[in-house]
Amino acid sequence: MINQHYLDMLGHKSVIRELSEYATRRGAEIGYENVFDYSLGNPSVPAPRDFNADAVHLLETMEPVKLHGYSPSLGLPGVKEKIAASLRRRFGIDYKAEHIFPTAGCAGAIAHAVRAVTVPGQNVIVFAPYFPEYGPYINETGAQIRVVPARFSDFQINFDGFEKAVDENTAAVLINSPNNPSGVVYSEETLKELSERLARRSAQYGHNIVLISDEPYREIAFDGKKVPYPAHYYPHTLTCYSFSKSLSVPGERIGYVAVNPACEHADELTAVFGQISRGIGHNCPSSLIQMAAADTVDETADLSVYETNMNLLYDTLKDLGFTVQRPGGTFYIMPKTLEEDAVSFCRKAMQYDLIFVPCDGFGAPGYCRLAYCVDTEKVKRSLPVIRKFVEECYR
Amino acid sequence: MINQHYLDMLGHKSVIRELSEYATRRGAEIGYENVFDYSLGNPSVPAPRDFNADAVHLLETMEPVKLHGYSPSLGLPGVKEKIAASLRRRFGIDYKAEHIFPTAGCAGAIAHAVRAVTVPGQNVIVFAPYFPEYGPYINETGAQIRVVPARFSDFQINFDGFEKAVDENTAAVLINSPNNPSGVVYSEETLKELSERLARRSAQYGHNIVLISDEPYREIAFDGKKVPYPAHYYPHTLTCYSFSKSLSVPGERIGYVAVNPACEHADELTAVFGQISRGIGHNCPSSLIQMAAADTVDETADLSVYETNMNLLYDTLKDLGFTVQRPGGTFYIMPKTLEEDAVSFCRKAMQYDLIFVPCDGFGAPGYCRLAYCVDTEKVKRSLPVIRKFVEECYR
Repeated sequence: MINQHYLDMLGHKSVIRELSEYATRRGAEIGYENVFDYSLGNPSVPAPRDFNADAVHLLETMEPVKLHGYSPSLGLPGVKEKIAASLRRRFGIDYKAEHIFPTAGCAGAIAHAVRAVTVPGQNVIVFAPYFPEYGPYINETGAQIRVVPARFSDFQINFDGFEKAVDENTAAVLINSPNNPSGVVYSEETLKELSERLARRSAQYGHNIVLISDEPYREIAFDGKKVPYPAHYYPHTLTCYSFSKSLSVPGERIGYVAVNPACEHADELTAVFGQISRGIGHNCPSSLIQMAAADTVDETADLSVYETNMNLLYDTLKDLGFTVQRPGGTFYIMPKTLEEDAVSFCRKAMQYDLIFVPCDGFGAPGYCRLAYCVDTEKVKRSLPVIRKFVEECYR
Repeated sequence: MINQHYLDMLGHKSVIRELSEYATRRGAEIGYENVFDYSLGNPSVPAPRDFNADAVHLLETMEPVKLHGYSPSLGLPGVKEKIAASLRRRFGIDYKAEHIFPTAGCAGAIAHAVRAVTVPGQNVIVFAPYFPEYGPYINETGAQIRVVPARFSDFQINFDGFEKAVDENTAAVLINSPNNPSGVVYSEETLKELSERLARRSAQYGHNIVLISDEPYREIAFDGKKVPYPAHYYPHTLTCYSFSKSLSVPGERIGYVAVNPACEHADELTAVFGQISRGIGHNCPSSLIQMAAADTVDETADLSVYETNMNLLYDTLKDLGFTVQRPGGTFYIMPKTLEEDAVSFCRKAMQYDLIFVPCDGFGAPGYCRLAYCVDTEKVKRSLPVIRKFVEECYR
């Protein structure tokens, strides 16, 4: 009576979730303030006041039937135009409202993007390290995820690995910069080279390989730098965005796909997304949330705390002799663990109430992830504990 | 580069949407108040004040990181408990929080329910007349819709048709009472007979056939009657609900699946829904909207206008000699058209700025649907126009 495939998926519990649940249980024992829980990528700063103020204003002044009415299945036109205008201003690409498809966060965005450009049996290439949910995001469409091993020297793209992985059944490449879990930002050079190689392979195979760019961390960039925008470098790019991190509203499930106007089928893709929605029960994000996000599209929560936290952790990890790439954005850092078995390393750390996530599931065995979307005060208190753990276990 | 299947779906435009677009264009010409637009099932009454007040209260008083934070993928526990408690009170079934899975409206609910209990190649039976979106809702999972012809005498279930349609590959039956488009409410007798037949066939085939009950119109019931609750009559029932109509918030995309505690696999089904979510990019409705809906779970918008409108239209249609079943709920009525070809009938009506929807796509050729979620004043003005249309075209 029940679909066995999904029952089997249940068997494979998420390591991140298990660790997070452990952290919660442990918090109940010793006080959560004493658990240095670096497990979950849940924003820790409040949404900008304007987001809430705008939502309240809409609730108090807009005609309820209009405010809460059905959004067209391709999204509210005014919302789409505000998002397009922001992207035009910021990235100089001539997006129109009709290139924007509002979605329930990046998960919804990727669900539509992958289905639109693949058929079952084709493959979608991802580069390690990668967000483990890319597995179900891709495989559950009937397409297959194909993982290119990491370039461990700097966690840019391993192009030799790409050339080995790509073939005539490659429909798309899914990238994520700034990257979860490494915190690394793909350089202009990386994106140019990727673009050239995609163009070459597209020509060889006689179909355009699509670049799906997952960018929830776009606004969390360090050292005053801008994150290179992948759609700049390759025309056939579907940009998947979420306001979860920029506005600190992950529970509100709001994001979009932006179709590069230079993309093949640019005029049909959002309509195709609308057809996909019918089958997966998506049918638009909340109207209220669409409007509030669009009204604050150019704002962000105060994201500076993540850079402060990153510097504290990076300096301490370096000082302790860790091999670690300095993040260019996100709220993650991914040091090499001090023993080969990252799971064993993270288990030992748990004895010190340090909750790190082994990166085996991210395609980076021998590394662990720290999600530093926590109070800076707690990060500071964790530093001597990290030092104690390393000195007692690995000196 | 683009999935041809979805491009092909684009070719089949929705008749309802085309008519609604025509009504909008015509409205621009002659003033929308002069177009008697009965095409779209979009609630016309405002959400209850408490819904907006509750949302404002949450936005103004709750800690933003908590308010807008990730909901667990199976839904916010407090929300689930409030919904379960309401169902326990109202229907006397012992739902617990863990039997409730919040979804993005009924579309999201059905997407999860169908995937959970089917495998590709199995069939799901629906009874005409039925909401045309059941086609993509079911077929896009890989299962196949199997339509049982209508029982035209009263639009209850055609059980002879059911017996011809059901076979060992039948995984589920999807019903909708009160019904879109007929407005008919399935009687206790109908539900009892359906339950007996499902139990018999389940025993015969060695697997439980699941009843998926789509109930967005549950609270719109006429003549002070209660709508019989299908889960009462059959244990293996997944109840799909949306607050779209009861709270008049269709754009907010909020609903749930309630798993009957007596259902086989009742303890696993919501966890399975969570796994399905990963693949379709659902990952929970908006946190704010989950909370606001749960806080007003036992309220409704002022739904009485729909009964007023129904009576006005029913009396006029009867008076004009239409064959028509008196609706027991919803905001739809489905008269037999005055010529065999419903499309031709509706085209002639358009000349009078009367926008009716032919029911061929609902599995009821020779009938049309009027969605009377419009101002009563407009309904009243439409009555002499309907009379004129009928007298000029069919007398």
